[in-house]
Amino acid sequence: MGELYLVGMGPGDLPGLTLRAREALEKAGVVIGYSTYIKLLEEMGLLGGKEVVRKGMTEELDRAEEALERALAGQRVALVSGGDPGIYGMAAPVLELMEEQGFRRADGGMGLPGRFALGEKNLVLEVIPGVTAANAVASLLGSPLSHDTCLISLSDLLTPWPLIERRLHAAGMGDFVVVLYNPQSKRRDWQLRRSAEILLAFRPKETPAALVKSAYRKRQEVTLTTLEGLLSAEAGMLTTVVIGNQQSRFFEGTFLTPRGYGLKYHLETGEPLPGETPGLSLRRRDA
Amino acid sequence: MGELYLVGMGPGDLPGLTLRAREALEKAGVVIGYSTYIKLLEEMGLLGGKEVVRKGMTEELDRAEEALERALAGQRVALVSGGDPGIYGMAAPVLELMEEQGFRRADGGMGLPGRFALGEKNLVLEVIPGVTAANAVASLLGSPLSHDTCLISLSDLLTPWPLIERRLHAAGMGDFVVVLYNPQSKRRDWQLRRSAEILLAFRPKETPAALVKSAYRKRQEVTLTTLEGLLSAEAGMLTTVVIGNQQSRFFEGTFLTPRGYGLKYHLETGEPLPGETPGLSLRRRDA
Repeated sequence: MGELYLVGMGPGDLPGLTLRAREALEKAGVVIGYSTYIKLLEEMGLLGGKEVVRKGMTEELDRAEEALERALAGQRVALVSGGDPGIYGMAAPVLELMEEQGFRRADGGMGLPGRFALGEKNLVLEVIPGVTAANAVASLLGSPLSHDTCLISLSDLLTPWPLIERRLHAAGMGDFVVVLYNPQSKRRDWQLRRSAEILLAFRPKETPAALVKSAYRKRQEVTLTTLEGLLSAEAGMLTTVVIGNQQSRFFEGTFLTPRGYGLKYHLETGEPLPGETPGLSLRRRDA
Repeated sequence: MGELYLVGMGPGDLPGLTLRAREALEKAGVVIGYSTYIKLLEEMGLLGGKEVVRKGMTEELDRAEEALERALAGQRVALVSGGDPGIYGMAAPVLELMEEQGFRRADGGMGLPGRFALGEKNLVLEVIPGVTAANAVASLLGSPLSHDTCLISLSDLLTPWPLIERRLHAAGMGDFVVVLYNPQSKRRDWQLRRSAEILLAFRPKETPAALVKSAYRKRQEVTLTTLEGLLSAEAGMLTTVVIGNQQSRFFEGTFLTPRGYGLKYHLETGEPLPGETPGLSLRRRDA
């Protein structure tokens, strides 16, 4: 029976791969992906002896269709995504297409991995998680995501822009840390600025922000800035943007969003503050 | 000079570790962590010949302090977090404590890895990202996080509950997919129900939801339910909860949040819908 592994590559270097992802790539007879990711896997030396199918950037449905066809025909297929397949990656287009084509569950199970049938043919589908850009980028900055965080894609190719704006407003109201995926491209050149404008209604212009380009790859660039600085920042398709919450601060060249230990403990002595008890709810109501 | 690696363990099994995390653990002379994580690393056979320091669950500051002291004394220290150190993990308490203790940047650099000094002593700090629970859990469900997502911790040990409620309201208003970390414990037994009540004001009671316990570990449990079902669900410290957005649906035992291909393309033929153009902004304004 054919197998389809949706493999998360993490940031895109060999040390950033999980062992599970490497094993899936080793088992696969054919590897399908966006040409940039295929090139990275070649540089890692992981494609030797395998059939390789490169596709263009906007051809997700085409990649998903080819992967499903080949797995139904009995091949072991790895369909790769940068970062994690479940975060703006290939997991959704594969399932959307399976639904459209009328696949049925064939193992009576729930969740994944699972066996699915289309007519007389079967395949096993498995999603192999990876380190998504939010986490890769955060590790190069310090600890910007240490409190509640939103991931928002600024790409309006599949999402109406009004919905993206509504989410930016909500993220501002909730004082979430915000990670922006797909912040800018040649055609989409005003969305990052507009996002910063929306968040400026909710938090100070000095709020820490950062742009990280090509995390853990060649030409990696880490830029610390502020929410106001994002109004005139240049980003690209390889950039991820992080915007702090109202507690975030820079500490000696790192981007720190406190978890809140200082609200409960005297950090120098480790003793709880008056009225606070370790292991119990915070008594303070403000933060 | 001492080195401190904040290592993300991913879900907690050997195949879920990145190569970078394994290499940091191999280099380390001493490994410090919450006893549950230390036990998992022992089972993986990664602690042979190393000094091991086990700490209790609420002793994050204690763990951070010991790790910093040992690194300043010249040791190579791995301080481990489940998932990713930057998502409710050890990265924030380490930086918060370094700030309190008066560490200074010693390499003139920005971001991490970086060299920091306290008085005459130095250490190098590096954060090694891992697969966080949101991504691990999503991979077992299908593709629930394929559109904009919020991560919210329901633990009010360090966060005032009113701020958590404000974020749940904001997540509802923005129709974000929601991942709840730390949904319930013996002492915190009403927060998950209250969270479901808040979100029920914004999305239908049939909205797909799921509880995943111990993803990729022994006694893994995947439960599909609905937002209404969360009102009476039992979760625990090892459970992560996912709540879909208004487009989310179950498909043959999987949890699917569509990325939106069906808004732009005829999924059967792959042709763009009338008025839509591949590579350009979505013309439809509703979704």
